[in-house]
Amino acid sequence: MSLIVQKYGGTSVGSPEKIEAVAEKIAHMHGQGHQLVVVVSAMSGETNRLLKLSAEVHEQPSAREMDVLLSTGEQVTIALLCMALQKRAVEARSYTGQQVHILTNNVHGKARIQSIEADRVRKDLAKGRVVVIAGFQGVDSEGNITTLGRGGSDTTAVAMAATLSADECQIYTDVDGVYTTDPRIVPEARRLDRITVEEMLEMSSLGAKVLQIRSVEFAGKYKVPLRVLSAFEDGPGTLITYEEKEMEQAQISGIAFNRDEAKLTILGVPDQPGVAYNILGAVANADVNVDMIVQNVGEDGTTNFTFTVHRSEFQQAQTILQKLARDLKAREVSGDDKIVKISVVGVGMRSHAGVASTMFKALADEGINIQMISTSEIKVSVVVDEKYLELGVRALHTAFELDQVVEK
Amino acid sequence: MSLIVQKYGGTSVGSPEKIEAVAEKIAHMHGQGHQLVVVVSAMSGETNRLLKLSAEVHEQPSAREMDVLLSTGEQVTIALLCMALQKRAVEARSYTGQQVHILTNNVHGKARIQSIEADRVRKDLAKGRVVVIAGFQGVDSEGNITTLGRGGSDTTAVAMAATLSADECQIYTDVDGVYTTDPRIVPEARRLDRITVEEMLEMSSLGAKVLQIRSVEFAGKYKVPLRVLSAFEDGPGTLITYEEKEMEQAQISGIAFNRDEAKLTILGVPDQPGVAYNILGAVANADVNVDMIVQNVGEDGTTNFTFTVHRSEFQQAQTILQKLARDLKAREVSGDDKIVKISVVGVGMRSHAGVASTMFKALADEGINIQMISTSEIKVSVVVDEKYLELGVRALHTAFELDQVVEK
Repeated sequence: MSLIVQKYGGTSVGSPEKIEAVAEKIAHMHGQGHQLVVVVSAMSGETNRLLKLSAEVHEQPSAREMDVLLSTGEQVTIALLCMALQKRAVEARSYTGQQVHILTNNVHGKARIQSIEADRVRKDLAKGRVVVIAGFQGVDSEGNITTLGRGGSDTTAVAMAATLSADECQIYTDVDGVYTTDPRIVPEARRLDRITVEEMLEMSSLGAKVLQIRSVEFAGKYKVPLRVLSAFEDGPGTLITYEEKEMEQAQISGIAFNRDEAKLTILGVPDQPGVAYNILGAVANADVNVDMIVQNVGEDGTTNFTFTVHRSEFQQAQTILQKLARDLKAREVSGDDKIVKISVVGVGMRSHAGVASTMFKALADEGINIQMISTSEIKVSVVVDEKYLELGVRALHTAFELDQVVEK
Repeated sequence: MSLIVQKYGGTSVGSPEKIEAVAEKIAHMHGQGHQLVVVVSAMSGETNRLLKLSAEVHEQPSAREMDVLLSTGEQVTIALLCMALQKRAVEARSYTGQQVHILTNNVHGKARIQSIEADRVRKDLAKGRVVVIAGFQGVDSEGNITTLGRGGSDTTAVAMAATLSADECQIYTDVDGVYTTDPRIVPEARRLDRITVEEMLEMSSLGAKVLQIRSVEFAGKYKVPLRVLSAFEDGPGTLITYEEKEMEQAQISGIAFNRDEAKLTILGVPDQPGVAYNILGAVANADVNVDMIVQNVGEDGTTNFTFTVHRSEFQQAQTILQKLARDLKAREVSGDDKIVKISVVGVGMRSHAGVASTMFKALADEGINIQMISTSEIKVSVVVDEKYLELGVRALHTAFELDQVVEK
């Protein structure tokens, strides 16, 4: 008998029929003797319906009232799911974030969880009840309703699991696990049985957006065993682990990519202390998020400085750089928004040399020119022309033998 | 400067546009320097939408989860109304029943208010804020969400007004006040400037369903000045008072009627102690609600016993009576569901003789046969054939000169 926290997203509970299907799944597991705490999101479409209502009343509504409004979405789901469980003779109790006292700070719309009172939940579990909790929401120290921001239900589930020292936190989604890369690009992409939390973080931020990053960080901090699995089909999903992998494992877990980036270069900047700060400071002040940053060794006392931004902020960043180039007496500014970033991710590369060279050779063999390179301990990323995205990802997937099933 | 509690029902807040109109009204009053607490219902249609969702999941959902579900309706409205007020530069704060701590007993679906913590509301008012409260809902001593039942928002408003010792509790509806009778039947029907709480209770229960009866009783208990007025047009509405009227006033305030009743008679029952209990006990045990009860002086040691029930329970009551007639050795059972009840209501009749005779003469003059008569201190009710409803109401409205404007 295990204590399991499960989380079902908006698509999984998007209609009364789907809620019944989820209830069926829960009733089955409950029947096997597991203690279950279930965190749910608003039914898909509901949040947008509420946002539309508020937009008709106020273009920029107050964050406090927006939280009061949006938090009704999950409240509807918890009630309906409990009803569906009760129909199956499973005793169930619903709680809003306020009721189970998920205490957060007072940053409406993106509050952070500070503590959870779990006594009530533990008592219900002891009585054999399934506890159903509204995700995404909490309450601040003054009793105001707060929300954790989009995707916050994952965080609620992880926080509940940490508080209850659950045996596992299961995140049910519309995919059946984490893949070596996007199966729409590489049909041979394989579901990973396990992935380390560090790898997961790199995969998430790079585009394999299965879980909200914050919930993965949170899970890592409290070592909550986290499993991603499908709400619609049976299967083991992918377990996110906190141990180093064994010796024999593959170096690389997956190939991630991101098509939302654009590249900007400022050329011939005087190579002096403080130049990087001057450039990035100006960009950050304009609230433009920067991803990769590369500065090469310069010559003639000047250097070239390149970074990537989200494509939607490309024009804005370019304007800032052009002004800056005049102030810094730089030679010129160039930019390109027809690029993609491709990364190989794996904790295995820590102890294995040669990942980067395998990567660069695979790309070179396909005639793909690399425009930028950036590395971390468990990741190597390159920027290439966007037309090479599919070709590059497939070449790397094959080069690292990710389509071959390996026992882990 | 007054402290006013206002309540807007579902129709008044049925769309973003209507919510804006309500906000406009509130902003205007707030600008005049009044302190305002506003209680709102769910947007019209919302409760039915939620009921439909639950019906798809469970035919007989648990009352606890039903309350969790339904209470989201008002929560949406409070958020939207606050946003609309903030757009008009009026500082506003929303509270759910749970947040303002409207403590109720634990009877889900028809909970009764036990207390309200008003400190937070008072602090907001002192800061010049408009306080917007979700009607219809509260929380029990264990923190479970409860609802007061349909129409409970009126009760919330009256309870808030009582707790805050408000100068007035204004109930905004789709009618502009309480009328001497239904204007659809008597075009000359007149809006009453004032009505006593006792009269209002008799009028409410008899079909002029402007306010939820419980909220009127509640208002009477705490002497909350209650005013019914239109959410859509300006006007003074009708003030519900607690004083006896002045000497010169009319004897009768209004003509009420009810078309939902049916009549049952058990004839030739042995006239013995306990017979009324035998009959009514059996009916009450079957959860059939009884309205009028008339027992005549009998002859030959037997008596006739007549009462009225809701038409929807006529068949059921008849079946019970037929069984009972055999047990009691009564002669026969007769019934009629083609009847209506017409009542004249007014505290003035306490001190004036002749109301009943004026009433009976007016009906006789129109050739209307009276089937049953029942009286209370401030009401005389008769049962007549349903075909005489309009004729009877008009005749009485004229006979008591209700179409003539009198200064009160």
